[in-house]
Amino acid sequence: MLKNAVSFSHDLLKQTIVPGDLVIDATVGNGNDTILLAQLTGSRGTVIGFDIQASAIEKTRQKLLLTGLGERVTLHQVGHENAESYLPKNKEIGAIIYNLGYLPGGDKSITTLKDSTIKSIVSLLPHLRIGSLLIIVIYSGHPAGTEEKDALLQFSEQLDQKEFSVLRYQFINQKNEPPFIIAIERRK
Amino acid sequence: MLKNAVSFSHDLLKQTIVPGDLVIDATVGNGNDTILLAQLTGSRGTVIGFDIQASAIEKTRQKLLLTGLGERVTLHQVGHENAESYLPKNKEIGAIIYNLGYLPGGDKSITTLKDSTIKSIVSLLPHLRIGSLLIIVIYSGHPAGTEEKDALLQFSEQLDQKEFSVLRYQFINQKNEPPFIIAIERRK
Repeated sequence: MLKNAVSFSHDLLKQTIVPGDLVIDATVGNGNDTILLAQLTGSRGTVIGFDIQASAIEKTRQKLLLTGLGERVTLHQVGHENAESYLPKNKEIGAIIYNLGYLPGGDKSITTLKDSTIKSIVSLLPHLRIGSLLIIVIYSGHPAGTEEKDALLQFSEQLDQKEFSVLRYQFINQKNEPPFIIAIERRK
Repeated sequence: MLKNAVSFSHDLLKQTIVPGDLVIDATVGNGNDTILLAQLTGSRGTVIGFDIQASAIEKTRQKLLLTGLGERVTLHQVGHENAESYLPKNKEIGAIIYNLGYLPGGDKSITTLKDSTIKSIVSLLPHLRIGSLLIIVIYSGHPAGTEEKDALLQFSEQLDQKEFSVLRYQFINQKNEPPFIIAIERRK
């Protein structure tokens, strides 16, 4: 009945993206969200995806080939803290998603890190369309995860409420730190 | 885009209630949720509502008269810590909702309190249908509110995850303590 964090993040993406949008997958990973974004943004839309790991980019490219969605997706093997320089000029972003932590099935010592994650968010938020969402799915059950989680909560709690609404969606009685969501809506 | 707490609580009610259900409004207040519950449970359903204040019961009775939904609703001017003794025998509950704090437009010194609220929740949870929800909308911006909020979080965080899923839905960058939600799903 209650949706888990990943399922709720997909609901939010479906609500915020309209066909033709430019959308950002800031952490491509195994490409599951990239595929969903490509479906939601449609044949006239654009997905730009970032990941520092070659294996993530390669897996996602294969998934895109199989689904025939490749034409609307551009992948960059680049850290998301550099994402802004890959944006087209004068085009608002319809949605941005981060799945933090490590690559499932990959090298667990390679994780997102608080400084580059926050740098990336700060650089992309001004490009977000008013009324649209930047969604962060936080997996904090790895060594650098608690630090990243705390830094993100601290960062997002101080965002000006006139400019942004920040929602926390979290299951709070589970022992093994399931993922939770911070969703940031640009208000003006 | 992001739904506020009250709107999200209504979405959850719509998802959990099926026509014919028995549902509980543990804090009738001005009757807005009572009306919604009566609509969702349908002509064969039953709403049982509780409030300690005569003015709340009276206002809600009038609203029910105007909407023609009165036949499916029973109101008791009784604290919700006594709710269990008003339940029909051998009938599962389809949804339970609490709106904590004071009566809007009423005497702000009369508020829900942590001990009776938790006593009420503990007594009603075993009657909840598996898969259904107990939803708490928490207004903590009054003197007893912080204490009640902290006690409820502590209580719900320790609910056994095999038996319950507990979701917290909260806007975290707003200065004036807007309401937030704790939703408890019974899993077995």
